[in-house]
Amino acid sequence: MKTNLTIVKIGGNIINDKDNLLSFLVDFSQIKIPKILIHGGGKKATEMAKSLGLQPKMIGGRRVTDDANLEIVTMVYAGLLNKNITAKLQNNNCNAIGLSGADANCILAHKRIIKNVDYGFAGDVDYVNNSAINVFLNNGMTPVFCAITHDKNGQLLNTNADTIASEIAKSMSKNYQVELVYCFEKNGVLQSIEDECSVIENINKRTYEKLKQENIIAEGMLPKLENCFHALENGVRKVIIGNPKVIIDKNQKYTTLML
Amino acid sequence: MKTNLTIVKIGGNIINDKDNLLSFLVDFSQIKIPKILIHGGGKKATEMAKSLGLQPKMIGGRRVTDDANLEIVTMVYAGLLNKNITAKLQNNNCNAIGLSGADANCILAHKRIIKNVDYGFAGDVDYVNNSAINVFLNNGMTPVFCAITHDKNGQLLNTNADTIASEIAKSMSKNYQVELVYCFEKNGVLQSIEDECSVIENINKRTYEKLKQENIIAEGMLPKLENCFHALENGVRKVIIGNPKVIIDKNQKYTTLML
Repeated sequence: MKTNLTIVKIGGNIINDKDNLLSFLVDFSQIKIPKILIHGGGKKATEMAKSLGLQPKMIGGRRVTDDANLEIVTMVYAGLLNKNITAKLQNNNCNAIGLSGADANCILAHKRIIKNVDYGFAGDVDYVNNSAINVFLNNGMTPVFCAITHDKNGQLLNTNADTIASEIAKSMSKNYQVELVYCFEKNGVLQSIEDECSVIENINKRTYEKLKQENIIAEGMLPKLENCFHALENGVRKVIIGNPKVIIDKNQKYTTLML
Repeated sequence: MKTNLTIVKIGGNIINDKDNLLSFLVDFSQIKIPKILIHGGGKKATEMAKSLGLQPKMIGGRRVTDDANLEIVTMVYAGLLNKNITAKLQNNNCNAIGLSGADANCILAHKRIIKNVDYGFAGDVDYVNNSAINVFLNNGMTPVFCAITHDKNGQLLNTNADTIASEIAKSMSKNYQVELVYCFEKNGVLQSIEDECSVIENINKRTYEKLKQENIIAEGMLPKLENCFHALENGVRKVIIGNPKVIIDKNQKYTTLML
């Protein structure tokens, strides 16, 4: 039987609040190894861009990454956030190792092909180097990935953290029984956006189509759920969406995705 | 017999010039593994601080690292520089892994004790985790360290890159025959600062004392050479100071340190 592996993705809303983040990192440290953390960016990159007089350019909720903005996300995601998260985990006796996709060639991507929109240095993932990640896991280390990848031609690329999480989960499923947990500010996928108690506890592909038609799942949740189903269709055993406490407390409500 | 290990430290002057850096990284990639790179900061952190309206504070050539400046060096050293160097090495088929001292708990340090000067979040190295570094080397990875360490209490610390290089070299000497190479903008330690051809080819502890008395070695070179002798006294087999080309071309002049 394959060993269990927990992969957790945290979004900007957890990172933006210092106390929330510290509390999450204490909880995460208590998950039995092996485990992997993937973190998004949060508002710090936008603040930094503004402080430097740059106007962040967003199209359809996605950042357009020109040269100057790539510098900023590389500094903030791979430097400031990734190393602070790593240092805090080390303090909690979790042997974290902070990584970008360039490190040990862990995540290969290509610059997004221009169709209608030029997203600049945005990366679409081609390949996750699970043997490199296995080296870390087999030696008791906990990889912590930021949302920066590379193209093996020397170019760093800004890459969606939800996608990185599902691609890593897919790749690690070759050797592990993977549980993928998306943590965000809500308790799960909600029937009614205003009611935190209206968590839809189970969503499968059939009910997902129905929820889309009824417009209950819309906008930002759509790509997130597409990532979830993509992971499930490619060997990931379980996908969960919930608030950060879900990683240590399964008694609360959360959403489980299934095929 | 122990395996050979080459440890190279590059300073700010190599990093500041894009073409110099790229050319160095091509050369470095040609060194037979195992090898380790340590890089300093360069002027980018100072530029970034100025762009953000901060005045970098230096005392005796060393940066005073307050909260805001620690954020900046963490962003620039561990993010921008470290990940770009890693991506360029990957492009040269060198399987680089960019690291701070917090990653895999590689370098433990403590906040410098305040004597006459409060250097803020400056770190003095206590311990290099050579078993973690061995995991990377034994799996064909090339560690690339920036000058950020941690104290295991969640605090990142800005740490002198020359010292990191000599401490890593010392620690790795337990398992390897280590050659430590300090690359900088000059051809070696010079008899006359204006004459690039006046390289002192060999310096031992006795001649070092004499060169100090004669004021031929002074200022910034003093701590650099102290680091070199400290390494030699603690098991490092060979220490070299020269320009970046010295790593692939030993026919040019350079300075060899010995006890």
